[in-house]
Amino acid sequence: MALSDAAGGSVFELPIRVYIEDTDAGGIVFHAKYLHYMERARTEWVRSRGVGLRAGMQENTSYVVQKMNLHFVQPARLDDQLIATAEPVASSRVWMTFRQQVLRAESRQLLCEAEVRVACVALDTGKPRRLPENMQKILKKAL
Amino acid sequence: MALSDAAGGSVFELPIRVYIEDTDAGGIVFHAKYLHYMERARTEWVRSRGVGLRAGMQENTSYVVQKMNLHFVQPARLDDQLIATAEPVASSRVWMTFRQQVLRAESRQLLCEAEVRVACVALDTGKPRRLPENMQKILKKAL
Amino acid sequence: MALSDAAGGSVFELPIRVYIEDTDAGGIVFHAKYLHYMERARTEWVRSRGVGLRAGMQENTSYVVQKMNLHFVQPARLDDQLIATAEPVASSRVWMTFRQQVLRAESRQLLCEAEVRVACVALDTGKPRRLPENMQKILKKAL
Amino acid sequence: MALSDAAGGSVFELPIRVYIEDTDAGGIVFHAKYLHYMERARTEWVRSRGVGLRAGMQENTSYVVQKMNLHFVQPARLDDQLIATAEPVASSRVWMTFRQQVLRAESRQLLCEAEVRVACVALDTGKPRRLPENMQKILKKAL
Repeated sequence: MALSDAAGGSVFELPIRVYIEDTDAGGIVFHAKYLHYMERARTEWVRSRGVGLRAGMQENTSYVVQKMNLHFVQPARLDDQLIATAEPVASSRVWMTFRQQVLRAESRQLLCEAEVRVACVALDTGKPRRLPENMQKILKKAL
Repeated sequence: MALSDAAGGSVFELPIRVYIEDTDAGGIVFHAKYLHYMERARTEWVRSRGVGLRAGMQENTSYVVQKMNLHFVQPARLDDQLIATAEPVASSRVWMTFRQQVLRAESRQLLCEAEVRVACVALDTGKPRRLPENMQKILKKAL
Repeated sequence: MALSDAAGGSVFELPIRVYIEDTDAGGIVFHAKYLHYMERARTEWVRSRGVGLRAGMQENTSYVVQKMNLHFVQPARLDDQLIATAEPVASSRVWMTFRQQVLRAESRQLLCEAEVRVACVALDTGKPRRLPENMQKILKKAL
Repeated sequence: MALSDAAGGSVFELPIRVYIEDTDAGGIVFHAKYLHYMERARTEWVRSRGVGLRAGMQENTSYVVQKMNLHFVQPARLDDQLIATAEPVASSRVWMTFRQQVLRAESRQLLCEAEVRVACVALDTGKPRRLPENMQKILKKAL
């Protein structure tokens, strides 16, 4: 897990290996799997700032994806070493928006990119709720 | 598998049951799973018109998702009976675009909707190739 | 969903279609997917007897797989129409054992078979707990 | 990825993080996911000895799981840091058997263990074929 900072911004990068479980009979990574990779990158970005998802759930806080805008550029294949990025680009009281990419690790070739809006909800009711203090803080620093 | 026709259009509908494998620790269907549901609906729409994916692969034809625009409206939960729809809305020589929804079966409540562009590629090289005759025919009928 | 009875026994059968999501770059169904198919068959067997999993969870009852003995005989492929069976063969106060198979639907060719022990646990603590009344009843009828 | 040697043996260890994608509505890791973790550990063990799966496929060599004997001891949960082990314990001309465990990383608590037999097959026909030279060599060293 690395963190690259450009002009004060923060793009979090998570290394991802492609396993046989990720591929399909077309010989490439199944398209829905990129959503897994991006979710892992968001999770590790949050964790790297000291916030754990399970801890949040114990306080009745959960996160749901509301919107995704995906562009699949090039397919990844078995054994590929990838990088999934996560960069917060906007937030409100109840949601945050990330710009995310999946790249080939060595060549930095773009495979998939997305804009993802994630909302904070109450775990029991599913109703929107205010982002917890610690999330607001790390977003403020990043934006 | 049912087919409803409204004003000459064609919206294909596939019943889907939510299993424990589809859910996550938030108690709801994991967001990437809706892409599986939609892919199943596109596949069954094609199959209902007499076109099989494996047969296509034997002629070096495969399909890849190029773009997706997703809106997650309400979460599905364990044991839910859903419907995934697929409706072709546009096509070119190499791609087709679908409007798709995931609904609760009984109430027809909208859970997720998407616009999905799928391109035809050569299975071995991944390069774009012309949609096969049989696909062009069923698209022509539907559009 | 069909139910075949032989000599008073009960083997539940669930039709399963193989989608691209189930396959891997080897061109066959990824081995872990058979566990999904078998879990779906157990779930539908229970549902066909009037017991829902989500209802159980609301009473703090959940089920976990404790042991599996699997034999993968022949691979399934994209577009295949399969049958997953579930047959309860033993039970105690806290667990039940199923014999399960995945077959090709038309030829009845065996693809995978397993013996699976499933235990009842408390959803909150994960501790073993007595099988609920309704589960005990349907097991008694089946065994 | 670490390698621990005890009495000349070789137990390969792969760190694994539990993500929301791995969990289910029971709040724990879905049982089939442990097969993914174990497959990743076998793959990384092979890779650590210089053998890549995709390279094998280009020579018409693939691997399929034939038998698995699984014991699920304790559930893993969201955010858990795990270790998946792979230790070859036997082989023939066409198959190899692994003893595998999934442990909690810090406490070394056993969560799942398995014996797994993996066979070498021709990618195109699925027929058994002799393990390639490089696989035979690394097995010989390990056994």
